[in-house]
Amino acid sequence: MPATPEWVKALKPSGPQGNELLDLERAKSSISVEKLSDYLFGHELIAKRDQILEILQSEKVFDKSQNYTLGRVEKFPLALARAKKLRQLKVKHNWSYVEEAIAQGLVGEPHPYGLHASMFLVTLRDQTTPEQQEMFLKKAENYEIIGCYAQTELGHGSNVRGLETLAIWDPSDKTFIIHSPHLTASKWWIGSLGRTANYAVVMAQLVIDRKPYGPHPFVVQIRDLKTHQPLEGIHVGDIGPKFGYNTMDNGFLLFNKVKIPHSHMLARFSGVDPATSKYIRPASASLVYGTMVFVRSHIVFESGSVLARGVTIAIRYCAVRRQFQDRDAQDRAGEQQVLNYTMVQIRLLPLLAATFAFHFTGKAMMALYEANQKRMLKSEKPNNETNRTAGPEELNPVTDLLADLHATSCGLKALASTSAGEGLEACRRACGGHGYSSYSGIGSWYADYLPTLTWEGDNYMLTQQVSRYLLKSARSVLQGKAQNNDTCKILKQFLERRDMGAAFDILGKDEDIVSAFAWRASFLTFEALKHRDEEKQSWNSLLVDFWRLSTAHSQYLVVKNFYEALHDKSMGEALDTETITLLRQLFRLYALHTLENEASEFYTSSAVTVRQIQLARTKAVMQLLEEIRPHAIRLVDSWRFPDWQLDSSLGRYDGKVYEDLFHRASELNPLNALTIDPYPDSEVMVKRDGRDKMGAKL
Amino acid sequence: MPATPEWVKALKPSGPQGNELLDLERAKSSISVEKLSDYLFGHELIAKRDQILEILQSEKVFDKSQNYTLGRVEKFPLALARAKKLRQLKVKHNWSYVEEAIAQGLVGEPHPYGLHASMFLVTLRDQTTPEQQEMFLKKAENYEIIGCYAQTELGHGSNVRGLETLAIWDPSDKTFIIHSPHLTASKWWIGSLGRTANYAVVMAQLVIDRKPYGPHPFVVQIRDLKTHQPLEGIHVGDIGPKFGYNTMDNGFLLFNKVKIPHSHMLARFSGVDPATSKYIRPASASLVYGTMVFVRSHIVFESGSVLARGVTIAIRYCAVRRQFQDRDAQDRAGEQQVLNYTMVQIRLLPLLAATFAFHFTGKAMMALYEANQKRMLKSEKPNNETNRTAGPEELNPVTDLLADLHATSCGLKALASTSAGEGLEACRRACGGHGYSSYSGIGSWYADYLPTLTWEGDNYMLTQQVSRYLLKSARSVLQGKAQNNDTCKILKQFLERRDMGAAFDILGKDEDIVSAFAWRASFLTFEALKHRDEEKQSWNSLLVDFWRLSTAHSQYLVVKNFYEALHDKSMGEALDTETITLLRQLFRLYALHTLENEASEFYTSSAVTVRQIQLARTKAVMQLLEEIRPHAIRLVDSWRFPDWQLDSSLGRYDGKVYEDLFHRASELNPLNALTIDPYPDSEVMVKRDGRDKMGAKL
Repeated sequence: MPATPEWVKALKPSGPQGNELLDLERAKSSISVEKLSDYLFGHELIAKRDQILEILQSEKVFDKSQNYTLGRVEKFPLALARAKKLRQLKVKHNWSYVEEAIAQGLVGEPHPYGLHASMFLVTLRDQTTPEQQEMFLKKAENYEIIGCYAQTELGHGSNVRGLETLAIWDPSDKTFIIHSPHLTASKWWIGSLGRTANYAVVMAQLVIDRKPYGPHPFVVQIRDLKTHQPLEGIHVGDIGPKFGYNTMDNGFLLFNKVKIPHSHMLARFSGVDPATSKYIRPASASLVYGTMVFVRSHIVFESGSVLARGVTIAIRYCAVRRQFQDRDAQDRAGEQQVLNYTMVQIRLLPLLAATFAFHFTGKAMMALYEANQKRMLKSEKPNNETNRTAGPEELNPVTDLLADLHATSCGLKALASTSAGEGLEACRRACGGHGYSSYSGIGSWYADYLPTLTWEGDNYMLTQQVSRYLLKSARSVLQGKAQNNDTCKILKQFLERRDMGAAFDILGKDEDIVSAFAWRASFLTFEALKHRDEEKQSWNSLLVDFWRLSTAHSQYLVVKNFYEALHDKSMGEALDTETITLLRQLFRLYALHTLENEASEFYTSSAVTVRQIQLARTKAVMQLLEEIRPHAIRLVDSWRFPDWQLDSSLGRYDGKVYEDLFHRASELNPLNALTIDPYPDSEVMVKRDGRDKMGAKL
Repeated sequence: MPATPEWVKALKPSGPQGNELLDLERAKSSISVEKLSDYLFGHELIAKRDQILEILQSEKVFDKSQNYTLGRVEKFPLALARAKKLRQLKVKHNWSYVEEAIAQGLVGEPHPYGLHASMFLVTLRDQTTPEQQEMFLKKAENYEIIGCYAQTELGHGSNVRGLETLAIWDPSDKTFIIHSPHLTASKWWIGSLGRTANYAVVMAQLVIDRKPYGPHPFVVQIRDLKTHQPLEGIHVGDIGPKFGYNTMDNGFLLFNKVKIPHSHMLARFSGVDPATSKYIRPASASLVYGTMVFVRSHIVFESGSVLARGVTIAIRYCAVRRQFQDRDAQDRAGEQQVLNYTMVQIRLLPLLAATFAFHFTGKAMMALYEANQKRMLKSEKPNNETNRTAGPEELNPVTDLLADLHATSCGLKALASTSAGEGLEACRRACGGHGYSSYSGIGSWYADYLPTLTWEGDNYMLTQQVSRYLLKSARSVLQGKAQNNDTCKILKQFLERRDMGAAFDILGKDEDIVSAFAWRASFLTFEALKHRDEEKQSWNSLLVDFWRLSTAHSQYLVVKNFYEALHDKSMGEALDTETITLLRQLFRLYALHTLENEASEFYTSSAVTVRQIQLARTKAVMQLLEEIRPHAIRLVDSWRFPDWQLDSSLGRYDGKVYEDLFHRASELNPLNALTIDPYPDSEVMVKRDGRDKMGAKL
């Protein structure tokens, strides 16, 4: 790399410096960043995080400076080296699961052990018999075997029942024959499978005596434990480059009549009796069913911080970036901070509000899940379904609360992950031209996050499950058989008031905002029910309505959970009035901004008047932007992302945006080591630094 | 790469094959793909395209198989080799500008000569004196010097007047001193500058006798013509990796008091008299001003095909992909094509409609521009502004028509490029999981397109210019001084009818749809005018309103242009009734779908009733989806993208989606040449194919 000349090193950015501007921003607000973040995440967690950060930063393998430049073939081995180092550090420091997750979050990229450490281990824990735990789980926990979870196929993602891979019971030698009858049966997208795993949990259609019994899990060794070469009858590899997630080896896997012993079918819930060749029906699946709720609730919870990372970067940068003078300014006062423009505020501050909304919603969901899980453990009941892959409509959850939790977690997962994904892109664009630089730190984060909109239930598909549940609830309410849960409660309240109409004071009372969201969701539920049950419209013709309905219901839940968090005793104890007032403004901004974006459903349901919406848009929201603006920097600070984690020139805590962009471009950018021949009739003539000329072989 | 076993080669996808499904789709519709595409693009153009395609495919350097895998340092020299080859082919085959652009489009990636071939040459042509043409233009046209256009700086993008680079006139030796006083003065984002160019047109603040005269263009040599090393006092390099566009070397550039001769200031429009050191004011800038209109109109025109590429891929794949049975189906009829689901249709078919809407709108804009340009050439008038970088509000365009064209091209550029960018991402997501694979062909296309939303005027910034023009027009209409253009016409009509109210039959009459869009845009214009002129609201507080207003006006223009294209004589002559009827359905789908998305503005303006919107949503749009569905494949076929251009497994013309995904993953994916050691306590142990083991140096 050519050295930076002295005269360049002497240059500083013009005007007020980034650090001065952020200092001023921080001085403008007196809310306590520390108290707020302690309340959000817990003081201990942040302290732990800081310890782990120090450990990671001292390891060369985690140096991030070339992350944005490497090609796929260089990226992957580096990611594997990092995964190995993380595992070594975990053992060395005896990290808990939470500490491991913190370390992983700080490193901030998917890694090749990812599916081993999550789905492979979880499945082995949840679905094995004690003997199978002995056979597989211990080795897996010690990384003596490395596994993955092979469900999705080339031809089947959402429709798990349509999986084509077969597990044919062979009574003659008490084995299963694992087989891929078609190309579309190839396992596909399987994380950690492409280059890393030597074992897989394979979801395959169990066939006994030519009769299919649906998808079940089997443990299959796929690579030699020493040579790491694929075993006989197995074709396995990486599926190729992706929009993001390129540090992970998502893989494909085909079987040519591979025999596995009877003991390799995961048999905690169901199985095949080797003596009689009879299928053994599952005893209970409610805990497994609960796992889906857990995973989705966790996605909701994480969506807050996922989005907050982009919001932190964009808001800090927009406080440092200055462009144009105020058009109405009398004196030529110098350029405005971009964050002062209302067009920038309306793009960023509702997203800032959403980070808190999702955080509190996710937290509430997880708490509900845990309470319910405890209750269920006490009173496990029989059930006739088995695997985690079955659609919930066929499940008979032990309690109605679980069904409610399941539906709400589906809807919230779809809403929160879509909002976070699209919000990150909005943050990137709010950074103007520099948002497009990899050094903004948003692009790759966004690209790596996008699969979340598809996995654990495609966000569009999930809305059908939510609507199915809401229709069922509405029917039960109409029949006077309503369950004792929140969903039925708001539907009942709507029915009771339907003939009186609504009169919600959305601009005056916070609780009326929540009621207006409940009203609109209930209205849409009964509309959809009418289309389906009375007008007998086809399911397919109603999918768009269902999607709107699910969104409306989930927005209600977010607004409600945020409202309840504000009125939780713990908040009053932990935070001062000023901070709580500010959080309340964020609640109102999230809710009213959502309301004006979805205005037409709010009118149509008569939840609010046209005048109210107009006032919300032109007065309330604009005023909230003004009220929140001075606190924007302290609010993003309270998410407490270390610079090392953000890996962003634009989002630096100290505001030294331009110095950092320049430093990276001029000193860390390997392209600048190449000297080319610019003329069209020559070779490319790449010269790398002082080294020899290389004639281009291109 | 491990060889693919024979038993794998024998596998086929299950169920009806992709090619069979697409054959059936094509048989369902009888519209003529050839006639439609000939009408859209011209028969000759397509024939030319096919010739050029053949030439490109025969050149090894254009092999696309590793495009998605390479890192930045490998990508760039390859892109340069391709740029050189393209230049050689152009010379060899004597390609016209249009033919060159076709070739470039087929290769489909930005390249290091990009800014030389566009802005550098254009600026030298437009802004030089005859002597300067001799000095610079000829060499540039022959690629004896390679240039770029250096305007944007690290600290200034949108606000061109804020540029910091100085060009200080030194009367003692008749030179300009080009100087970067601060780090933020560094040129930044300059295409072709990072590694390639040896010359630059530098926009710098002209200073004569300590008095600033605003940004002016200067030609500066930056690298040695032989060694390609930076010249004394110049620090130049590539700005680093980006979200996309990584085949281009966007660069930075700093000057330490670099002297250039007087003759290097581009002096066609303005200059410095070397004898008196007096500034020479520009004579006319209207042609340059027109260039901005041209560039933006071109972006509008291109947005149709940019989006069509994603739509083609997504619609073809959704016709091949099958998932789930119809929930209402009595018999177990097998899985549905995903394209049959209304939730997929509502995401894709309005985008398909938009491709045609933007195509016709762009075409109309370019025709208007050209007609106006001809008129202007006849009657060039004096003007007191100079460079292409000045904000249009300070310009005095020669004709009012040009002002109208300018404003409409700003608004349409913002609308069309935002729609195309976001539409591509919607297409990617509509492909489900496989949309995330690079082999979908959408991700990198989307990532490379995104800068269009920022350059040639940031899409949010541009909406201020549109609104400023609309407010001015509204004032002139109120004062009875309306210009004779379409904008003033609709504003007048609105005023005349305001006290009678509107009664648009949007579901019955196409022309009433256009009127409803005009009404809403006019309503918002006079609302904004009231806020600004009567209520004296600050400019900043109205930015969100302005953005909505610009969007509304631009949507009106798109709807109007599409409507007019349908009633153009040429269409009736070229196409049969069935095709025209189908295009009319696409018009209605685009318009009514937009209308329901923006419903609340249509109510508030009383352009339509709540009932009409409900009917549009639940009846008209759903029915249009059903009517257009059978023609979807033929409609995307009519965009005529060759498979080689799409470079997409999912978008193949023959529907062999799964075979192609598998082939690429298993046989073209270089990651599969690596064998790793999976255990955490080992080295990474990368082994590449049969070659020696390499201990990881990570």
